[in-house]
Amino acid sequence: MGGTGYTGVELMRLLARHPGVQLSVITSRSEAGKPVAELFPNLRGSVDLFFSEPDVDAYRDCDLVFFATPNTTAMLQAEALLAAGIRVIDLAADFRLRDISTWEQWYGATHACPALVEDAVYGLPELNREAIREARLVANPGCYPTAVILALLPLLRGQLIEPASIVADCKSGTSGAGRKAAVGTAFCEVTESVKAYAVGGHRHLPEIREVLRGVDPTADLVFTPHLMPMIRGIHATVYADARDGDQQVQTVFGDFYRDEPFVDVMPAGSHPETRSVRGANICRIAVHFLPAASKYVVLSVEDNRVKWGAGQAVQNMNLMFGLDETTGLEAPGMMP
Amino acid sequence: MGGTGYTGVELMRLLARHPGVQLSVITSRSEAGKPVAELFPNLRGSVDLFFSEPDVDAYRDCDLVFFATPNTTAMLQAEALLAAGIRVIDLAADFRLRDISTWEQWYGATHACPALVEDAVYGLPELNREAIREARLVANPGCYPTAVILALLPLLRGQLIEPASIVADCKSGTSGAGRKAAVGTAFCEVTESVKAYAVGGHRHLPEIREVLRGVDPTADLVFTPHLMPMIRGIHATVYADARDGDQQVQTVFGDFYRDEPFVDVMPAGSHPETRSVRGANICRIAVHFLPAASKYVVLSVEDNRVKWGAGQAVQNMNLMFGLDETTGLEAPGMMP
Amino acid sequence: MGGTGYTGVELMRLLARHPGVQLSVITSRSEAGKPVAELFPNLRGSVDLFFSEPDVDAYRDCDLVFFATPNTTAMLQAEALLAAGIRVIDLAADFRLRDISTWEQWYGATHACPALVEDAVYGLPELNREAIREARLVANPGCYPTAVILALLPLLRGQLIEPASIVADCKSGTSGAGRKAAVGTAFCEVTESVKAYAVGGHRHLPEIREVLRGVDPTADLVFTPHLMPMIRGIHATVYADARDGDQQVQTVFGDFYRDEPFVDVMPAGSHPETRSVRGANICRIAVHFLPAASKYVVLSVEDNRVKWGAGQAVQNMNLMFGLDETTGLEAPGMMP
Amino acid sequence: MGGTGYTGVELMRLLARHPGVQLSVITSRSEAGKPVAELFPNLRGSVDLFFSEPDVDAYRDCDLVFFATPNTTAMLQAEALLAAGIRVIDLAADFRLRDISTWEQWYGATHACPALVEDAVYGLPELNREAIREARLVANPGCYPTAVILALLPLLRGQLIEPASIVADCKSGTSGAGRKAAVGTAFCEVTESVKAYAVGGHRHLPEIREVLRGVDPTADLVFTPHLMPMIRGIHATVYADARDGDQQVQTVFGDFYRDEPFVDVMPAGSHPETRSVRGANICRIAVHFLPAASKYVVLSVEDNRVKWGAGQAVQNMNLMFGLDETTGLEAPGMMP
Repeated sequence: MGGTGYTGVELMRLLARHPGVQLSVITSRSEAGKPVAELFPNLRGSVDLFFSEPDVDAYRDCDLVFFATPNTTAMLQAEALLAAGIRVIDLAADFRLRDISTWEQWYGATHACPALVEDAVYGLPELNREAIREARLVANPGCYPTAVILALLPLLRGQLIEPASIVADCKSGTSGAGRKAAVGTAFCEVTESVKAYAVGGHRHLPEIREVLRGVDPTADLVFTPHLMPMIRGIHATVYADARDGDQQVQTVFGDFYRDEPFVDVMPAGSHPETRSVRGANICRIAVHFLPAASKYVVLSVEDNRVKWGAGQAVQNMNLMFGLDETTGLEAPGMMP
Repeated sequence: MGGTGYTGVELMRLLARHPGVQLSVITSRSEAGKPVAELFPNLRGSVDLFFSEPDVDAYRDCDLVFFATPNTTAMLQAEALLAAGIRVIDLAADFRLRDISTWEQWYGATHACPALVEDAVYGLPELNREAIREARLVANPGCYPTAVILALLPLLRGQLIEPASIVADCKSGTSGAGRKAAVGTAFCEVTESVKAYAVGGHRHLPEIREVLRGVDPTADLVFTPHLMPMIRGIHATVYADARDGDQQVQTVFGDFYRDEPFVDVMPAGSHPETRSVRGANICRIAVHFLPAASKYVVLSVEDNRVKWGAGQAVQNMNLMFGLDETTGLEAPGMMP
Repeated sequence: MGGTGYTGVELMRLLARHPGVQLSVITSRSEAGKPVAELFPNLRGSVDLFFSEPDVDAYRDCDLVFFATPNTTAMLQAEALLAAGIRVIDLAADFRLRDISTWEQWYGATHACPALVEDAVYGLPELNREAIREARLVANPGCYPTAVILALLPLLRGQLIEPASIVADCKSGTSGAGRKAAVGTAFCEVTESVKAYAVGGHRHLPEIREVLRGVDPTADLVFTPHLMPMIRGIHATVYADARDGDQQVQTVFGDFYRDEPFVDVMPAGSHPETRSVRGANICRIAVHFLPAASKYVVLSVEDNRVKWGAGQAVQNMNLMFGLDETTGLEAPGMMP
Repeated sequence: MGGTGYTGVELMRLLARHPGVQLSVITSRSEAGKPVAELFPNLRGSVDLFFSEPDVDAYRDCDLVFFATPNTTAMLQAEALLAAGIRVIDLAADFRLRDISTWEQWYGATHACPALVEDAVYGLPELNREAIREARLVANPGCYPTAVILALLPLLRGQLIEPASIVADCKSGTSGAGRKAAVGTAFCEVTESVKAYAVGGHRHLPEIREVLRGVDPTADLVFTPHLMPMIRGIHATVYADARDGDQQVQTVFGDFYRDEPFVDVMPAGSHPETRSVRGANICRIAVHFLPAASKYVVLSVEDNRVKWGAGQAVQNMNLMFGLDETTGLEAPGMMP
């Protein structure tokens, strides 16, 4: 539902070749009646559907509906779909926060179905794999949270850091702002420039904080997003004070993610580049310890269209339907 | 008049340091009341004005008004300004074409003051220097026409080419599309891609054709614009059939532009780069002769914000007011 | 053979997931002993090989060797491989020209095995599909030639154009220059700029000319390459004089390429973007007729890493080994 | 001395139009004999000099020599120039650190003239204006240090922060790596990607630390540089723990830099963009206080070619020779 944005087109790119999926309905209020491949010519020959009016009935024969809609859309329709036995993955933010009043404060709206929030599973497989398998409603994480949380999980779980000392300085490609008509994301405004934004507070801050506090209730962080002159990619540079020196942190990370198909811990001393995950459903991580400052610096990169976003949604779908978790997601990154 | 677009901000950048100019009024309907430097922080410390409502009265004490407005604005207001003794340079297209019916066909509007069109001088100093000095109303050329016409003038004047054999394959930076909220010029839609547009016909085609026919009435051309993933710069690659072999074309170009302060003929065999004129009021040209095909290929680059656009408008202003033609325009290009 | 360039890494990206291929040896003189994934971290988890010394013996158990080496390398080793019963696809230029003296003139070297040139098949499946199936030695086409030839084949075969009137104005991403240490392809020299190069003559000119003359012996063209500030993509804008008006050229193209899996003829009036084929093995074409000038303008885009280059090589491999021609090449382009 | 790099070309761009300067010698060992404007076509018409062999004698009639050479060059020649009464500004790192052993450790060389280090003045006018006026030898600061130090001076001087709690997360355009043939800075390796580098330790760390400790001997920091896909610009995001709440930090910054011609403190809540200083000799700063975390976040942007680099060197020259400090440096940034 909602196939005209960057999340929608990326989902279709992945699903079009997924051997276990039949793509049957793509809705869009604004583009109803137009061939999908007219809006997204990269899909010519791969997706033959037309956009149709959003309508719960249209999904009657579906097993799963992805919401690639703006925030506050899924919360109006999820209930009807679930009632009809259709499972739901929301790629927007409606079901990401357990705390309704925090959600309402940051999203400036009254939540339309708070009862469903409890049912929703936060769709980060590395954290909630078993719950996702059983979930009827999955809240796909935000782009920054995926990169930041995966960088911190081994440190927080291992009690290696002062949990309230975290600084997450994050750099995102412009696709994170979505496909829209806006001066601020125009080519001439974005290219050849870098800026921070929302230093005073960004919606992903409460999301990261709530998830980290699920691991350690005293966790807290400063989070600064920056806009980068590139399409895809998030680079999180995460700083935290070490509790007791190095603690063989390279081994800790290696062990923690050993069995994860989509988290790649790089060798000691590495500096991951966002381009190494372009188009791939991978979060690539390097951890550094700075002895003089007694701080860890974790570098975490992902393609914000994939490992956050469409790829992670497909990974969740695979889990929900008992498919191999990696199906349709094996493509390596595209370099250069 | 109309200071919120890319032409406006570039004009202010040049005029703010021009020793013979006092910038006294900047209008904008949408931003009236806001400091100019809030919209364009590069001008903090250089331009202290606020945007004001567009109003002919506001210009009472001005000697000159620049229109950096959308097409069809200047034609509604130029008459009143001229009547008040204020000279006008229109950076939009309202007065570029002498042929009113051609204008109306390409711009989809009825011309509001056809009588003024005859008075207007096409503001290409290399073609109309003396007329510009005396002009009350100057029509600043389009971005593509400046690059294409300067590439062709020596060939056409020298009768070196078949005048109807011209192909102008042009590449433009995205700033040519203006500062606006539009999906088509969003960063993620433009970067890392190239496309042609308006192959069937672009508004600059009749403009180029009319100017060339002023030199040779049988001139004609095919004109194809392309959108480039860069902010500034136009690269025109112009092909034409030679009449009688090479004819020492390098010397012809050198002689033709010897006294022009803002046209730079490069040595034989050169390939000009758009970045070499970034921020500069220069059109840099190289001419090649291909003996096997008996064709000339002229490469012509300019910064479409300057040599077309704001810089050329300042050059015209200098001429109109008896200032040294190069005042305020001496800055070399910025590389890299 | 030769896996450290952009052609090598792209071949590995495609072959790593190709169900009919086992990647067994990757050579590099300079990087022998290093893990492939250290040089190309996008392949971490997908390619576990180490670079090894180039050595014909190393290929003893291979069915096919790809040369992703600089020009003049394959011609020294192809003979030994063929003698050992190993088929060869050369992605460089050693076997592209039938005319040895033309090759020697443009490549500035004496050809080491002219006898093999006759055996070599020019690897453009749309032209030579049946011959490729049987070939022992395939010369993969150049990047520009693929885009230009596919744009022209329907017009030349249909005798719709004056065959010597062709102008091919081509724009290429910087990856076409290869992975190398050079000032001219440094980020700060390339980005935010456009330039033509080799206007006086480029090695792909004789290649295109020879192939076109195989279709019409009187064909000739002017060819101008330009360097674009983007990684991937070629946009060919091809002009030619029409013989007798339009001739329903849209239908001609549609019919000509109807059964081609990797040539996509767009609807009338379209303007293909290079980004629509990013990462995909597709050449996307639109044809326009300009009645006033009586010219055709064909717009042809491809990812120069794929449809030219690695993808086309895999397409040729599929044909040579009786696999489905599209195996491993089905991924749609990545937008944005 | 040393005019073939990005620092050299930017110095020439600024000096060519400086009313108080005559540019008389440009040296380059590798390009001696070639016109400067052949290497840097943006300077055609502005700089008519040829590169000459580096030779102290060539500078006999100069008042000042700029070293735009690699590290460890100036230290070999500065003594002879100073002995001849010629003042020196080194844009490389030879005289930036007072502590010789620290310098030797980070630069991997024995310092050739440690005696001169004491005489050298660190050329940050906002810190050392009076000393610069009298200096014979000025060490122009590094690019990152300029942005980071200017962000911290008001906080450190005002004792508003815990001096050892500083994290400086810095993002730099690729021009900072210089003009050179290297795979790592090739267009296809840098564009559409972000990465950290030198997380374990970068040469600008001891430089920043030494300067900050001149203000507060207990100051210390973590410094992480990142490479951005853009030519020009540095964005420093600097975090530090507040000592006692907000302390009207906006006023503190405004007062501190009120009389500085080239530091622009933005209004509360601002997010400066690097493009707003493109081509300008300005450091633009915004300060934020985060009450929940009790941290200050300072955002500081500069054009690393100008406010660090050539512009700052000209600013120092103006001071050294009693010229108005802003001469030749008044141009506003270029947007877009």
